[in-house]
Amino acid sequence: MTEAAIPPDPSSPSSDARRWTAGILGATGSVGQRFVALLADHPWFDVVHLAASSRSAGRPYADAAHWLGDATLPPAIGALTVHEAHPDSLPAGAAPPDVVFSALGSAQARALEPAWARAGAAVISNASAYRMADDVPLLIPEVNPDHLALIDRQAYGDGFIVTNPNCATVGLVCALAPITRRFGLTTVRVTTLQAVSGAGYPGVASLDILGNVVPWIRGEADKLHTEPQRILGALDGDRVVPASFVSSAQVTRVPVRDGHLLSIDVETERPVDVDAAAEALTTYASPIADLDLPSAPARLVHLAADPDRPQPRLDVDRGRGMTVTVGQLRIDPLGALRLVALVHNTLRGAAGAAVLNAELLARRGRLSKQR
Amino acid sequence: MTEAAIPPDPSSPSSDARRWTAGILGATGSVGQRFVALLADHPWFDVVHLAASSRSAGRPYADAAHWLGDATLPPAIGALTVHEAHPDSLPAGAAPPDVVFSALGSAQARALEPAWARAGAAVISNASAYRMADDVPLLIPEVNPDHLALIDRQAYGDGFIVTNPNCATVGLVCALAPITRRFGLTTVRVTTLQAVSGAGYPGVASLDILGNVVPWIRGEADKLHTEPQRILGALDGDRVVPASFVSSAQVTRVPVRDGHLLSIDVETERPVDVDAAAEALTTYASPIADLDLPSAPARLVHLAADPDRPQPRLDVDRGRGMTVTVGQLRIDPLGALRLVALVHNTLRGAAGAAVLNAELLARRGRLSKQR
Amino acid sequence: MTEAAIPPDPSSPSSDARRWTAGILGATGSVGQRFVALLADHPWFDVVHLAASSRSAGRPYADAAHWLGDATLPPAIGALTVHEAHPDSLPAGAAPPDVVFSALGSAQARALEPAWARAGAAVISNASAYRMADDVPLLIPEVNPDHLALIDRQAYGDGFIVTNPNCATVGLVCALAPITRRFGLTTVRVTTLQAVSGAGYPGVASLDILGNVVPWIRGEADKLHTEPQRILGALDGDRVVPASFVSSAQVTRVPVRDGHLLSIDVETERPVDVDAAAEALTTYASPIADLDLPSAPARLVHLAADPDRPQPRLDVDRGRGMTVTVGQLRIDPLGALRLVALVHNTLRGAAGAAVLNAELLARRGRLSKQR
Amino acid sequence: MTEAAIPPDPSSPSSDARRWTAGILGATGSVGQRFVALLADHPWFDVVHLAASSRSAGRPYADAAHWLGDATLPPAIGALTVHEAHPDSLPAGAAPPDVVFSALGSAQARALEPAWARAGAAVISNASAYRMADDVPLLIPEVNPDHLALIDRQAYGDGFIVTNPNCATVGLVCALAPITRRFGLTTVRVTTLQAVSGAGYPGVASLDILGNVVPWIRGEADKLHTEPQRILGALDGDRVVPASFVSSAQVTRVPVRDGHLLSIDVETERPVDVDAAAEALTTYASPIADLDLPSAPARLVHLAADPDRPQPRLDVDRGRGMTVTVGQLRIDPLGALRLVALVHNTLRGAAGAAVLNAELLARRGRLSKQR
Repeated sequence: MTEAAIPPDPSSPSSDARRWTAGILGATGSVGQRFVALLADHPWFDVVHLAASSRSAGRPYADAAHWLGDATLPPAIGALTVHEAHPDSLPAGAAPPDVVFSALGSAQARALEPAWARAGAAVISNASAYRMADDVPLLIPEVNPDHLALIDRQAYGDGFIVTNPNCATVGLVCALAPITRRFGLTTVRVTTLQAVSGAGYPGVASLDILGNVVPWIRGEADKLHTEPQRILGALDGDRVVPASFVSSAQVTRVPVRDGHLLSIDVETERPVDVDAAAEALTTYASPIADLDLPSAPARLVHLAADPDRPQPRLDVDRGRGMTVTVGQLRIDPLGALRLVALVHNTLRGAAGAAVLNAELLARRGRLSKQR
Repeated sequence: MTEAAIPPDPSSPSSDARRWTAGILGATGSVGQRFVALLADHPWFDVVHLAASSRSAGRPYADAAHWLGDATLPPAIGALTVHEAHPDSLPAGAAPPDVVFSALGSAQARALEPAWARAGAAVISNASAYRMADDVPLLIPEVNPDHLALIDRQAYGDGFIVTNPNCATVGLVCALAPITRRFGLTTVRVTTLQAVSGAGYPGVASLDILGNVVPWIRGEADKLHTEPQRILGALDGDRVVPASFVSSAQVTRVPVRDGHLLSIDVETERPVDVDAAAEALTTYASPIADLDLPSAPARLVHLAADPDRPQPRLDVDRGRGMTVTVGQLRIDPLGALRLVALVHNTLRGAAGAAVLNAELLARRGRLSKQR
Repeated sequence: MTEAAIPPDPSSPSSDARRWTAGILGATGSVGQRFVALLADHPWFDVVHLAASSRSAGRPYADAAHWLGDATLPPAIGALTVHEAHPDSLPAGAAPPDVVFSALGSAQARALEPAWARAGAAVISNASAYRMADDVPLLIPEVNPDHLALIDRQAYGDGFIVTNPNCATVGLVCALAPITRRFGLTTVRVTTLQAVSGAGYPGVASLDILGNVVPWIRGEADKLHTEPQRILGALDGDRVVPASFVSSAQVTRVPVRDGHLLSIDVETERPVDVDAAAEALTTYASPIADLDLPSAPARLVHLAADPDRPQPRLDVDRGRGMTVTVGQLRIDPLGALRLVALVHNTLRGAAGAAVLNAELLARRGRLSKQR
Repeated sequence: MTEAAIPPDPSSPSSDARRWTAGILGATGSVGQRFVALLADHPWFDVVHLAASSRSAGRPYADAAHWLGDATLPPAIGALTVHEAHPDSLPAGAAPPDVVFSALGSAQARALEPAWARAGAAVISNASAYRMADDVPLLIPEVNPDHLALIDRQAYGDGFIVTNPNCATVGLVCALAPITRRFGLTTVRVTTLQAVSGAGYPGVASLDILGNVVPWIRGEADKLHTEPQRILGALDGDRVVPASFVSSAQVTRVPVRDGHLLSIDVETERPVDVDAAAEALTTYASPIADLDLPSAPARLVHLAADPDRPQPRLDVDRGRGMTVTVGQLRIDPLGALRLVALVHNTLRGAAGAAVLNAELLARRGRLSKQR
């Protein structure tokens, strides 16, 4: 398959353009449900396979999933039977879906994603299991699409694994990519205020979070200490050299449904002022701007003018949940650049991130292996 | 009045010990109501005068105040008539109360507090109007009781003004005083998650904060940039030399009733490690430990062991709301000391702070002027 | 103007179809903002006049309104200058807008709505001031469109006043209209759980409602005792004979943003069972089904199958906020029919209700007076 | 043991008064933790045995329980080892505790409570398993203490089972007992707004309830249809004849931590007016008023005067959580008596109810069997 075969008009799913079959692992969970919602009417992908725990296997998806969305569960997908998450659960002789979206937990992902890759699928994973593996791209299409080249190092035959970052990391890196391209980051400090949907379902108990905030999420700070450096690192031959800045994170959980808010300050290699930073953010040239990917927002970052923004309630859905909103750009008394960023944690920070990764692969002809 | 005249047993209000009359300015607001609750059974102070806006003046307090507390409004105070906030509203020839607690807004405080001081009252203010004035103590009794000496510079006759810090500042300084005494602070970075009660009543609209966080509170960050340096500054003759560290703050409002949470990182003059910092916090010698002040908690700071603490719901009432809880002490990837602190914003951070200030004045014989 | 002049395709605002100019009174409040959002792209109405309190008058709407929506304020409307709410504030010699939507408070509405009607405008009011007036229609287009005839009794010249019910009443009546048409109501008991947006902005203080419920809303229960009878009453000549059933309401406020939930039980003149009631709800023939009104939902009532529905979060936006969702239909141990209903209080229950009323007037040729 | 042996001064645990050993089944759950908190300093009972699931067994209680309270876990109880919930888990030859408080789920309670009774313990259960059993008292001490006589019908040897009602039922019956004694109930209609703590821990997922209400709780309405009649029924020989009124309930879950609010209307056999109802509520003569039970509140019911009460935040802790607050007494348009009641669901409605039951048994000499 060549680039020329890519649908010229992504908004026209009825064209005779090339389409790919898709599966979802962990389909009944909260991120899995977001995959279902995003892929239900996707112009390029057709959901044909749903997998979840053995408790759900064998049941129609509409019964197995406690549907969380305010939109209706698409009936065609609701009627699909849920399978176990291992590729052995495929009917005998059946090929795997072209693309397998993984919303598995980390431990399961570690075991099952390689199995699907070996079976020939393009595994597009939201799990943390392989994000830091040397030969696995940790990808944000607007930031480091060149890291896709790492999949050529993978030894899964026709299949491979591509990952997206942790939800809070996505917000941090989207807000900072334009800054570091222009000024060079040396230090990044961040305090997060994270929504409950980031913990899945049932996730955070209401008794723990109603009228409360909890300054701790297991394992989360560590991801903010390592993933940004990898994403913003340089591809050197067949490996990524992590960026050299150091990050420090305090994470908190707040009683918000969707939207991680990040209080950020950064120090830079080259002098920065508010106007220059604002210009960097608003003029950032996305390397995928020409690709017309269906899930790509018009702008990676929106710079809010009002002093009390961004706010989850008002800004989280910007760009259909794929635009990161930044506000309160200022130089603080320590001379650092301060800003506040907001990311939709289950769209730009999870399911939407993965779908965009898959779209990039499609456009780059990387889904042709399976044919 | 000498120290010897101070009540030997603060828990024994029925003793024949010296007592003082007290007034409350802004008595119907949320901090004013906290004053009412704290002073209703106070062993040293008797509330005799309540003042509020002209809308409330002339009405019984029980009618004028929209009582917010879960405890019952003390009936004796509920029966008092509310006056206008100017000392001219005192009955002709009447002396002002010995102590006047001010919960006024800043603009009103600027006009009215000097008037009460001139009338001979000890004005114990929670307002921001005079916190940074050269001759006004900005006081936390466990931290800088020596700053009380500034009142000798004031030219109000028998009266004077003493202030307590902004609610978030109190939490920050209580957590950091033990650290800076031992290691010397050079930089302080803080992101706050502040409760709605900090904005008074009606204060934050529910439409703005239900299921949301708002990364902005007017004027709040500036206070965190200047007040800590003044409180932790050194008294040099009749002036305070601000401490030299620089602070940078991002403030946010969260849907929590009471309790400001602070995500803090600091750099120090001398090397610090977690054990040394923990020891500094747990062995901090309060300069008022011997004074048996009724509102002073057993410990200024409690160090929580669990990794998910402090939390507003679980920790805010520690030490009857007068102990600051600290947790998650660690050295971050940048080599800075990181911690999380929680302060009860309307007790330790406002009304309780002021009452403790008044108790220190009483014990130090500074309320004797009025006699 | 005749029916033939009505736009044949309401989704085609670019046609050369007849359009009407529109004003909004109380445009800066929360219902006023809903009017702005609904009318910004309306196929029939063009917003040309915004009015609010004297505090806002003279300022651009974008500055005067604290915009609450998650969608962006339409820039063309944001640029309009806000006027005082009296028709005297119109430029000298200028005609009033064809239609004036009123989101005024009750006291102001009492004084100003007749003034606008006398000036020649069709006043479409969400206020309670004239709902129970003998000659004013209290209208839900799918329920009692014939009540429109009352405007012929009004003596305002070319103008007139039409009202929509209280937000909770709308939910109650939409759910019960199909039931009473078939079975005849004798008693209606309802307990409401009402969202904070029903109180406007700033409205309910967060300190009053965070983690709390408040079993009281001033004047609300009385509206539920009288408005349903008027809406479901019969037009007899030039007056409405109220329906004879008796209703009893307990109202409560809950920490929900949008969506009033109603726990209802009813007794009927004729025997009812669950299947018959469900059939009445699902087969209800709307008297405006043929009119293709742009804001009319496909169905007045949606009957939810799951036992834990309706829920504000999941069901409030059904039919773009114009469909009432009903669930849990059952015969209770007392033999009464029990159900739960949910209404979007600021759309179907306020601004959307008024816009739908205006659309009905347009379609019925009732806006032609002004030409 | 005789009544004379009962501690004359319940506030004096240091007297040489009789004490009883106590166990808690389901000790790690939310109601189990409330038992721990209530019994930690109880003047009559000493906690000596804690039991929970096999996952917790063998661990110190402080480790096994995710402590939810804002007060500190009592260290002496925290150090106890958790056992399995079956009496076989007692050390060989050891007697069971005198009293066993059960916070088990219904299925477990069905199997395990009889085993503990047969082992000789007085089982004081909060579970629903045996509430409707013919020979088991469903007890509210202030309402139907005579039902205790049912335990003489039980065939467990020295042990027996006593239950308290469902949390919402407790609120309903406490509010209505004074009414039915005076006026006789014929119908009861209730809509509940129930707190999340009623569902235990982790219980209600935050994603389900943040900014939402859910009009459904499995099995809850049925309890409100049957338990009130049993509690308010008459003891006739060795059985209870249920009261003849009929009740109808709609239950809802709301984002409140503690406190079930009930919107109630009742019809009565004899005419009732507001003054007479208020008098019945405020002069209700508790049949246990003379017993000085440590957990009994001064008043079973408090009648609130303000029109916007009761509210969970302001009223739930009245009488240390053991007083039910009633407000808004009125005759509705249908001639029924309407009121709103609030009950602390985990104290008066669960753990406190059970402890009060145990105190009644102690005072009545019913705990002497075990000696």
